[in-house]
Formats: sequence, structure tokens, C-alpha cells
Amino acid sequence: MQEHGMTIDLYELTMADSYWRRGMNGAAVFELFVRPPVPHRRFLVAAGVEAALEYLAQLRFKEPALAYLRSLGLFSEGFLDYLAGFRFSGEVWAVHEGEIVFPGEPLLYVRAPRIEAQIVETYLLNVVNFHTLIASKAARMRLAAGRGASLADFSPRRDHGPAAALGVAYASYLGGFDGTSNVAAGMSSGLPVIGTMAHSYVMSFANELEAFRAFAADHPRPVLLIDTYDTLRGAERALQVARELRAQGRSLAGVRIDSGDLPTLTRKVRRIFDEAGFPEVQIFISGDLDEYRIQAFQAAGGVADGYGVGTRLGVSYDLPALGGVYKLVEDESGPRVKKSPGKQTLPGRKQVWRTEGEGELADVVALAGEELPGRPLLTRRLTAGRREPARPLAAVREEVLQSLWRLPEDLRIIAHEERPQYPVSLSPGLRGLVAELEGAGD
Amino acid sequence: MQEHGMTIDLYELTMADSYWRRGMNGAAVFELFVRPPVPHRRFLVAAGVEAALEYLAQLRFKEPALAYLRSLGLFSEGFLDYLAGFRFSGEVWAVHEGEIVFPGEPLLYVRAPRIEAQIVETYLLNVVNFHTLIASKAARMRLAAGRGASLADFSPRRDHGPAAALGVAYASYLGGFDGTSNVAAGMSSGLPVIGTMAHSYVMSFANELEAFRAFAADHPRPVLLIDTYDTLRGAERALQVARELRAQGRSLAGVRIDSGDLPTLTRKVRRIFDEAGFPEVQIFISGDLDEYRIQAFQAAGGVADGYGVGTRLGVSYDLPALGGVYKLVEDESGPRVKKSPGKQTLPGRKQVWRTEGEGELADVVALAGEELPGRPLLTRRLTAGRREPARPLAAVREEVLQSLWRLPEDLRIIAHEERPQYPVSLSPGLRGLVAELEGAGD
Repeated sequence: MQEHGMTIDLYELTMADSYWRRGMNGAAVFELFVRPPVPHRRFLVAAGVEAALEYLAQLRFKEPALAYLRSLGLFSEGFLDYLAGFRFSGEVWAVHEGEIVFPGEPLLYVRAPRIEAQIVETYLLNVVNFHTLIASKAARMRLAAGRGASLADFSPRRDHGPAAALGVAYASYLGGFDGTSNVAAGMSSGLPVIGTMAHSYVMSFANELEAFRAFAADHPRPVLLIDTYDTLRGAERALQVARELRAQGRSLAGVRIDSGDLPTLTRKVRRIFDEAGFPEVQIFISGDLDEYRIQAFQAAGGVADGYGVGTRLGVSYDLPALGGVYKLVEDESGPRVKKSPGKQTLPGRKQVWRTEGEGELADVVALAGEELPGRPLLTRRLTAGRREPARPLAAVREEVLQSLWRLPEDLRIIAHEERPQYPVSLSPGLRGLVAELEGAGD
Repeated sequence: MQEHGMTIDLYELTMADSYWRRGMNGAAVFELFVRPPVPHRRFLVAAGVEAALEYLAQLRFKEPALAYLRSLGLFSEGFLDYLAGFRFSGEVWAVHEGEIVFPGEPLLYVRAPRIEAQIVETYLLNVVNFHTLIASKAARMRLAAGRGASLADFSPRRDHGPAAALGVAYASYLGGFDGTSNVAAGMSSGLPVIGTMAHSYVMSFANELEAFRAFAADHPRPVLLIDTYDTLRGAERALQVARELRAQGRSLAGVRIDSGDLPTLTRKVRRIFDEAGFPEVQIFISGDLDEYRIQAFQAAGGVADGYGVGTRLGVSYDLPALGGVYKLVEDESGPRVKKSPGKQTLPGRKQVWRTEGEGELADVVALAGEELPGRPLLTRRLTAGRREPARPLAAVREEVLQSLWRLPEDLRIIAHEERPQYPVSLSPGLRGLVAELEGAGD
């Protein structure tokens, strides 16, 4: 984090300097939300909230940073002194990491002296946009794969840098994946790590059977890649190894197929193992998968116990960025709005009230003071710069999985064509304030 | 880097353990290339080569990593001992950082004991795919914007994490941008930092003129955002500030327009400043720009001195991942090929020979031993684990800019529809080897 604390757009600092010179540092409230509509997504899984809180609690400007800023010749010494003593002193209300949310709803708001609230914009948007993007994509893949299937993040070679690969492993696990191929993520976050073998391994031996035997001898829970030469012949050779392992009191964990007509091949391979009395051998598939292709695979009668997903998860291929924004909604003069066409904001500090049941969900966005039926989504997570602890990741993931299957049917649809109907309305209090400010003019 | 050294797919390590147990550690050559075709790209700007070399030179497995790997219960103690003493001992041939390359051509190859070459696959692919992706996108924007226009990376709030934002700043500068809004990139890599002001600043004052005067008073080279209320009235107010600054012996650097009918607005705003005798005031535009929109803006008669580009640069929106692969091309038994349909590789260690002139370029992919006319693109950059120093970034960027304008006309076309014709052929030696191995069977 330390090295990335300066992930701040330059203009945040030049504006802050100007505010500082003019004593314009009264309390302000900035709200982070995603503007509707969001293409190809019926809901979002909020993530990056914990990373945002961590940043706010830790942000300092040390001497190398101050010396660098001074070298730009843009800042007053008074402002640099202010930065030297900077501690985020405000409060943050936020939804839980992993909460299902909808475009237009606040994911968090920051209430702090204006300068503090302003200069954290870039970092907060960056981590919430990125993690929410990936967690939301992962949740769609979980819905497509079904509850029981195993889902593995195989994306590190295509993610936007090694640190992004860690973020993808974290956010996809949060969104319902079972683990990642990324050893760095396993080591740093305790995520389950998953892996099989590559075609190059098979090709490094004189023949396929020899490769399979070697790998099974060397690996406690072998999964064999059977499509290097001919998938069905590969399955027969894997069956032979399964028999040899059983004779030793061991077992073959599974086979992976990475190419070809996957629905047909998986059915045939399933039959080969079932008829030979090896129903426990699992079938994994991979190869440019995403939620659409997983759904099409199942619709075509494919049978798989698990899916390895790479590129299309790791960069959220059909929607590679999320348009989260961070807008002033209140200052010393009261609630504020932005009125540019297509860029409207809703004024004031807010709360979201959710009523939900099996297959039912409705949200009302309200002013912070209002009391409405249901569950309030935002809670105070940071007070006077001090952060409430995060909940354990595995428990959060379990809640996400339960939430996904409680969602109304039409929010769980994967298809491209359908337009989402976000179940979000505005409270009487918020509608009243919007009407009042609309009358007010610039 | 240290914390990301473990960005390794688990299967690389389980396969390596198996190779280690079996003494299968003879010299191997793995080649990194991008499979054709690449949609929406007529050429690539190779980048991430320096990050790859840095990784190879630095990679170590320290005790926390070894303890973590031991805890997985997958690895032999002998292999963990091997990792404890790991140093990359091989050699790497690579194209220059910033070289224009084409799909199908090697960007680099690694020649090392098989285990060393295998376990670095994930990291090498990650950094080369990511940096090449962004540098190539940036170069297209440079071609669209023209030589003289200023181009700024405004993407940090949408990039895939704070570290990805650093990568985008670096790779877009390499690809021909002038700088970034990201202060962290300025500080860590010395990149020029660029910034203006936000709508929220304008809205924090009683009126627009007061906001402009305040910013101009506080900033040595002010660029005023003039579209918060009404762009043309904003331009008149900015002109008033320009007059006031001139009276003080200072000058207004420019104005930025972020919304509306940009071709029309920029023409009108240009006229306002020109007719008043302020031709030096520059016009910058922003707002979901990319190379297609910059081109359309110019085609519609828009006039701008510079462009601020965010989301569509930072995630390479129309192509958010690059399909670079890393394939075995030679081992102790000689040149190797992979024959799966659509996934063919070309055997053997290679060199690329380029003949080029003004508007002309032709590449021949050859075997490493062949001598052909032109300039060889791959040079030895790492020997026995020791790395040749990188060239200065600003000089590399200058060469990239010169290369872009030497490219044949049809490679500089931006349009979506046209299919690129990569100017790449195979040498007699390479064609002979391919034919020979095709006869050889599995």
C-alpha cells in the first residue's frame, strides 16, 4: 500500500492546495456510486470497500513524497506542511464487502473536511471500481456454473500486472470462486490454490501414458490433462492410470479437457469413467470460458464438475471497466446536486433500505435520517480515521453465495439481450429534497 | 517486485517438482509471442520486456515462500531445497522495449534449464501481455491525435488496481503519451504529471468567474475547466481571466472541455480566444475519448491542442487482454512444435529480420542461425542470469514516436473494419524445418 499511497490524480492536489490557501476546508460529504445503466450486468457485488478503508486509515505523506511534490513547483509550502501532518480524520459509511448492490445506490460515503475527502477520490474509485468489477463478473460465472461446481481463477497470465492478479484472485473468491492458480494469492491472502498440468508436460515424455504415470506418481491428488493428442484416447489412458492408482490404494482426482467439442467430449469421457466403475473421477474443463460459454456448454448437455476460467474473468472481458464516480452530495451550505444532463447526482447523505426474501428484493434509497422498513445497507465503518475490523473472507464469501441464490429469478439471468430492471426506488424524503433543489436553480 | 515474485501458476511448480524428481532438467527454449490474429490492432508496441528481465534477474525463493509451499503438501523436500538455491542461470534474447512487432513474431525467448524456463512462464506472460496491450493502445491514440497534440493519461480511477495504474502510466508514455495525471507514476518513474481542475472545484465557489480567478491565482500554469454550466459563457469568463493574467504579466495556459458537442464547441471557443488576441490559450478535451473518437472529432472539424484519455486507454477497452503465449520450441531432442489445430507453434530458436524505410516495412521470421538482409530485432539481453541495462525511457519513447510515423500507411489506419495484413513472412530455413517436422508425426 505504502508505495501506492500517491495514486492521486494531480488535480486533486492542486485543487486541495487552492482550498487550503483559502481556508475552504469545511465538512463535505462525497458519495461513491456506479451510474446506471451498467451494460451486461443485472447486479453488482460490492468489493474494494475494505481496501478503501485500509487506505484511509493508513494514508500519510512522508518526506520523499513531500520532496517530490515540492519539486513540481505547483504547491504552497503551507499546503505541503499540511500534508506532512495529514491524517484522515473523517468518517465513512459503507455497504458490507460482498453486498449485492445496484447502479445508483451509494456503495460508500465519506464525511470529512473537504480537502481530506477530495484527495482520496482517485484511490477510492480505483479500488472499488476494480474489485467490484471482478467480484460481479465472478458472481455471474458462479450463477452459470451452479452451486456445486468448482470454479478456479486461471487468469494470472492475462491480468493487468502481478498486483492486479492478486486483486482478481481475491475478488473472484469473494464473488463465489473456489480458488486460484496464483500462488502469490494463496500465500498472501490464504486463498485455496488449484492447478493441474500443461500440454508441455505431456509433450515432455515419450508418450501420454508415461506422462500420466509420472505425474500421478509425483502428485498426491493428480488431475490429468487428456486433450494433448486425442481426448478419448487420453481418457482411456487416464482410466488405466486410475486403475493402477486404485490398486495402490490411491485415486485419480480428475481429468481436464481444454479444447474440442466440450459438451460431446465431456459426456463421452464421463461414460468411460462411469462404466469402468470410476464415478469419483471428476471432469474439469477450461479454454476461454465465461458465464455465457458455461451456460451454453450446459445447455448443450455438457457434464463437468468444475471450470477453470482465465482471461474473461481476469479482465472482465465484456465490461473491462466499471464507471463508479465520487460526487459531492453535501457541504457547509447543505445538500448539493450536479445537474449536467446524463450526469445528475442525488443530493444529501443517504441510506439504502432493503426488503428481501426468497426470490424477492427491493431497495429504497433514502436520506440518512429516514427510517424505512427492511435492513439498512450502509453502516459506519470508519470513525475519526479509525477503522472497524473486516469480517473473515471465507464467511463473507459464504454470505455472497447465499445471497446469489436468494436473488429474484430475473436478476439471475445471464443472457446478453435482457435489460436489467434494477429494483431500486427513492424514498419520500429523497424525492422531496430532489424536487426542492430542482426549484433552486444554479 | 519481491512480493509479486510468487505470481506463478501452481501447476508450473507441481510440474517442475516432477521434472526435478526425474532429473528432467536439460536445456530448453521457450518463446513468447502473440498468436495472430489480434482484433482491432494492426501492430503491437512491445513492452514489459524490461519488467520481465528484471524479474528473471531478481527471482529468489525465500523462507516465507518455501514455508508456504511446504504447507501445501504437494512438493518434495528435494525440490524445495532446489528452490531455496534458485537463481535464474539462463539467457534471454528479446526485442527492444518499444519495438514495433507483429503477431506471430517472437518478442523474446528464454534458453535455460527446463525447470527455470518453466516456472517463470506466468510472470513473463503477465507483464509482457499487460504492458504491450497498453503501449499498443496508446500508440493508436498517438496516431489518431497527430504528432503535435498533447496526450495525457487520465485513467487511474478506472485501472485494475493502483499498481496497474502505474503500469498504464508507464506503458502509455512509452507508446507516445506526454504524461499522466497519476502522481505515483510521476514520483516513482519520473513521468511528467499533468492536471487541470474538476467540476466540483468550480461548484465550490459562488460562481464560475470567482472559481477561475481563485484557481488562476493559486496555480502557476492554470488550465480552466469551462463546461460546468455553459461552455461558451465559460469561455468568455476564462477569456476575462486571461486578460487579467496578461495585465499581471502572466498567462492562461488553456481551457478544458469535458462534455457537449466537442467539434462545434472547440471551434467556437478557439474563435473566442483567437479573435480576442489570445491564440496561445490552448484547448484540451476529455470525456470517454479513444482513438476512434479522436479521429471522429478531427474529421468533424474539431480543433484541440490536447486530449485527456481515461478508461478506454487504461483497460484497453476494445481489446482488454492480449493473448500472448509462451511455448516450448526446442529441447534436448531438438526443435519442437505443437500441432493442435489453431494452436500451432513454429519450431526452434528464432530471429526476426526487418527491412524498413519511409513508409515501408517487411519482417522475415528466421531460424537463429540464418543471416538475412536488414536489421535483427532480437538481441541478447540477459546472460547467465545477468541483465543488460535498460535504455533511458525518454529516448525509447522518442524512437517509438519516430517508428510510428515511418510505418506504412495501411498499418497506421485506425478504423475497426479493416483487417491488418501483417508484413511477416518465414525464412527458407524456417520453412524447411517446419516441413521436415510436419513429416515427422507425433
